[in-house]
Amino acid sequence: MNINSRVPVGVLGASGYVGQELLQLLTRHPGASVAFATAESAAGERREGVELVRIADAPLARAEIVLSALPHGVSAGYVREARAAGRRAVDLSADFRLSSEAVYGLTEVTRPRVAGAELVANPGCYPTAALLALLPLAARGLIDDSREVVIDAASGVTGAGRAPKRELLFGEVAEDFRAYAAGNEHRHLPELKATLEREGGFTGDLVFTPHLLPVKRGILETIHVPLTRLVDRATAEGIYEAVYGAEPCVTVLHGALPSLKDVVYRNRVAIGVALVANVRRPRLTVIAAIDNLVKGAAGQAIQNMNVMLGLPETAGLVC
Amino acid sequence: MNINSRVPVGVLGASGYVGQELLQLLTRHPGASVAFATAESAAGERREGVELVRIADAPLARAEIVLSALPHGVSAGYVREARAAGRRAVDLSADFRLSSEAVYGLTEVTRPRVAGAELVANPGCYPTAALLALLPLAARGLIDDSREVVIDAASGVTGAGRAPKRELLFGEVAEDFRAYAAGNEHRHLPELKATLEREGGFTGDLVFTPHLLPVKRGILETIHVPLTRLVDRATAEGIYEAVYGAEPCVTVLHGALPSLKDVVYRNRVAIGVALVANVRRPRLTVIAAIDNLVKGAAGQAIQNMNVMLGLPETAGLVC
Amino acid sequence: MNINSRVPVGVLGASGYVGQELLQLLTRHPGASVAFATAESAAGERREGVELVRIADAPLARAEIVLSALPHGVSAGYVREARAAGRRAVDLSADFRLSSEAVYGLTEVTRPRVAGAELVANPGCYPTAALLALLPLAARGLIDDSREVVIDAASGVTGAGRAPKRELLFGEVAEDFRAYAAGNEHRHLPELKATLEREGGFTGDLVFTPHLLPVKRGILETIHVPLTRLVDRATAEGIYEAVYGAEPCVTVLHGALPSLKDVVYRNRVAIGVALVANVRRPRLTVIAAIDNLVKGAAGQAIQNMNVMLGLPETAGLVC
Amino acid sequence: MNINSRVPVGVLGASGYVGQELLQLLTRHPGASVAFATAESAAGERREGVELVRIADAPLARAEIVLSALPHGVSAGYVREARAAGRRAVDLSADFRLSSEAVYGLTEVTRPRVAGAELVANPGCYPTAALLALLPLAARGLIDDSREVVIDAASGVTGAGRAPKRELLFGEVAEDFRAYAAGNEHRHLPELKATLEREGGFTGDLVFTPHLLPVKRGILETIHVPLTRLVDRATAEGIYEAVYGAEPCVTVLHGALPSLKDVVYRNRVAIGVALVANVRRPRLTVIAAIDNLVKGAAGQAIQNMNVMLGLPETAGLVC
Repeated sequence: MNINSRVPVGVLGASGYVGQELLQLLTRHPGASVAFATAESAAGERREGVELVRIADAPLARAEIVLSALPHGVSAGYVREARAAGRRAVDLSADFRLSSEAVYGLTEVTRPRVAGAELVANPGCYPTAALLALLPLAARGLIDDSREVVIDAASGVTGAGRAPKRELLFGEVAEDFRAYAAGNEHRHLPELKATLEREGGFTGDLVFTPHLLPVKRGILETIHVPLTRLVDRATAEGIYEAVYGAEPCVTVLHGALPSLKDVVYRNRVAIGVALVANVRRPRLTVIAAIDNLVKGAAGQAIQNMNVMLGLPETAGLVC
Repeated sequence: MNINSRVPVGVLGASGYVGQELLQLLTRHPGASVAFATAESAAGERREGVELVRIADAPLARAEIVLSALPHGVSAGYVREARAAGRRAVDLSADFRLSSEAVYGLTEVTRPRVAGAELVANPGCYPTAALLALLPLAARGLIDDSREVVIDAASGVTGAGRAPKRELLFGEVAEDFRAYAAGNEHRHLPELKATLEREGGFTGDLVFTPHLLPVKRGILETIHVPLTRLVDRATAEGIYEAVYGAEPCVTVLHGALPSLKDVVYRNRVAIGVALVANVRRPRLTVIAAIDNLVKGAAGQAIQNMNVMLGLPETAGLVC
Repeated sequence: MNINSRVPVGVLGASGYVGQELLQLLTRHPGASVAFATAESAAGERREGVELVRIADAPLARAEIVLSALPHGVSAGYVREARAAGRRAVDLSADFRLSSEAVYGLTEVTRPRVAGAELVANPGCYPTAALLALLPLAARGLIDDSREVVIDAASGVTGAGRAPKRELLFGEVAEDFRAYAAGNEHRHLPELKATLEREGGFTGDLVFTPHLLPVKRGILETIHVPLTRLVDRATAEGIYEAVYGAEPCVTVLHGALPSLKDVVYRNRVAIGVALVANVRRPRLTVIAAIDNLVKGAAGQAIQNMNVMLGLPETAGLVC
Repeated sequence: MNINSRVPVGVLGASGYVGQELLQLLTRHPGASVAFATAESAAGERREGVELVRIADAPLARAEIVLSALPHGVSAGYVREARAAGRRAVDLSADFRLSSEAVYGLTEVTRPRVAGAELVANPGCYPTAALLALLPLAARGLIDDSREVVIDAASGVTGAGRAPKRELLFGEVAEDFRAYAAGNEHRHLPELKATLEREGGFTGDLVFTPHLLPVKRGILETIHVPLTRLVDRATAEGIYEAVYGAEPCVTVLHGALPSLKDVVYRNRVAIGVALVANVRRPRLTVIAAIDNLVKGAAGQAIQNMNVMLGLPETAGLVC
């Protein structure tokens, strides 16, 4: 890849945390260049050497592909506009994740479909970790769907966006920890359930409870899986190894559990397992960790873009 | 209470995080005075105006009651020595929690027995929160013991003690989050199960997974309870209100979930509930929060001491 | 002090960080009760067991003294209204700090004037620490006013208030540190200079640079003092000891330097000194630490209130 | 640069924070490969895909250049051994910084000498920021050496190393801030003074006070410079621009001050200035920020290595 062959990429919504991450990754990407990057109140400012323009001034024609980090609800309209202008697109919002208009871009799972897609819906951060952890077990019929799968997820604050809200002030979040949207009220749950069924055939019940961590970035999910039959830890690790052994962005731990520091600033999911002792029926606890801004958003979007463009899948990424 | 009637209290193990908290609480307690406080490498130093002495030099005879924050395994011997010298004692270690030698001091539950006890075993921090959340439901037969109760607990770093370990360095813990002792390997689990059975008649399975939070203090437990019958949120809150309405150190939230900042630096457990939507069988998510150093250790020890001595139960405590 | 003799205190502006701290301190104060507490958007909510009312509904007549934690510019009007209604007042805003209408309430320095005052201007957080550190040296003519006194101060985020601003989000402040208002642009500087001159006769130049720390509370000031003559460390400590030895809320360290954890959640200033080696002219570095919300605001207001009312000066305070 | 021409690099001391950073940078470096990496207690483990070996087993002959992140005092012996084996070396410890055996590797200042050096002493983290901020002013005779230059520096915790010490525990450092080595006691001061004199002709007095910040990485220095003549802010910025305008790893801010988040995870120093108002004699406050592990250690070592090897200076670095 030399500079002459760099693919021009447009970024919609470059001033939030995900948009900033996209700009950082793209400006260091050996096969891409930033054609334009949009922001509204920050228009005219430079980020990573790129001057931000208003979305109304975005020169869509200059980009070969458009990545949108616009807010949910706002993104779809602009993405459709880009599509109408003949641009391929990766949408990082939730707008197309449940829609047949787009290919769901969980790269390790839907890679062949991503390759040919015109529009990719980048998965939500929480579903990315949960799906990569659950699908290999679901596909083997190992999840006992007569008992609920319980997922306790904890996310760093950048997952809540950059708009000023009192509840996100340092004075409120530091030294604090809390659940939110408990009782299956989180908007990521339909995406998670639909994908588990479509890609893994799993139709059992889920209990999903997100928490807000006093860290800037990272998601850790503690996933409690009721098993249809007893598998020991090495066997469980072997299942993940069989599925992900050749994947550059998935790390399967052996006899250890991942922590946020294994994954932050990397486009990586790390997965570890523990067999649950002293219970009557077999159970596995699976821990999955990602960086919410990288594998949970901007990094996976680049990974999908690379697949779409035929570039090396990890170009511009540190896995 | 005037100064002449202050009860002299001895503190064993005053240099760790729990011991420091005991000293802070006792030196501000209107009905207690510190008869002595022990430490080994810090002997000779002053903390909260009290000169620390080696345990070998502790003047047991000067104390009417002894509180031990010595490490597990070490505490029992010194507590028995204090008992042999005729002193009443509250042991904050795990050494007597499963023993018939001591009364288990979960104050709100075992208050009458604590009042007459010569030796009280102060509960572990994780069990304190879990038990106060689960016992009211267990006592009403609401927990479906054919499905597992899943508890994901997260604790601040002071819960791991003050001995220097690489994994507890700021450079390792800040911006990190991780599970540990997953798979029901935590040493608090037998205490939790034994007490749930003895005080609540519950014999079902538990899955307990602790996590290390990048905060100094506080425990939040997300407790997933399978129900024998559907109860709505207000009913669940009403059950807790019925049990704890008159308790000064328990706060039952209505239509809200507790966070660490509701409880830190207080001798309080805060409990909130959410009914789980979109599952086939009824389920409740209960969130309980405490300060691991206060209601989870030193504060509850003072609360027990107050009960033993016939002092107002919250004397010297902020609930 | 018994409950019948508790002084009724009104709190204006109880929903910010300082107002919350006032409520916490007053509801635990053995000689005071909360007559009312105001807030606007949070009116109707309860804090520390007190129902917040709109300021328009504040029953001024029920309070013997009013403490105002209203914002700068807003406070003066309401305080004057309370004064017109015959109430004594402590104003925690900057509105009266440079005015002859009020007594400047740096308790350790102006105690006799505070005792008889009808209106006390509570000092700013930064000046409180700097003045208690500098005045004893200034009074002895030890500060060489031909060279500048350089003060680098760092404050926790609660010092910037609770209104939502992007720059105060956890995602912006965590893992960050920065100076602001550099070049003597901070609004506390005139207060600091005027008081140094009035109370200490010092008219030399100051360079004051505040910084924003990624902590919730606490101020540490590193104060570089050019000396008119060489004094060794023990002599310097002795000067502070002579001035503050009997003060309950000042801790003079010997051969050590204070850190935030010595002072947070306490109404205390801690002061330590270091003689500067390897310089041609004599210099002292003085470090002073306070909790910005306690000795730097709510705690010192209570201390002043206690002095005004003839209560024990530290009633309701932990020093 | 293709893989066939990658320079084999040996890393001594790869398990500390600086060593880890070296490994991360080298494994992503397009022109380098890791020939070996040593550690003692972690020998046999893999980091960034590289198996760690004991230093006794380090195959020196396989490396073209050796980077040592061994502790002060320990490093010199091994570096001399590597030199005796004919290897070029960059020593990141303090062992050669004041020695004529090595070229002092402050890249932007000593680049021509680094290019031809066999042994480079990588500067200390604190001196790196202070020197890059002060040398342009010193070289123009702008610093008034009759008054002291006061430097208050604050560093993240990784600057103190990874050995377990109580004072570096999360429970001690979080929510804390403190000075240390006050009074010109820090071991970096001789290096700073010697270099200021050698490279800038400055022989005036310095007052250097480091502080420990509750962040993982980053150094911010607030540098108070007495001026020989008044220069306004734009002029001061222009001086830095003239010196550093073409430097890829120096960012000169205009009308703004740097914060840690401008520099962490980058091999960059950011510099901003403020003119001090309301003082009798002219003064400038200069703020300089770096990542202590990157431009303050591993990144600058790679930068020096690139210069020594004739590689593009920022190869493998993000500035």
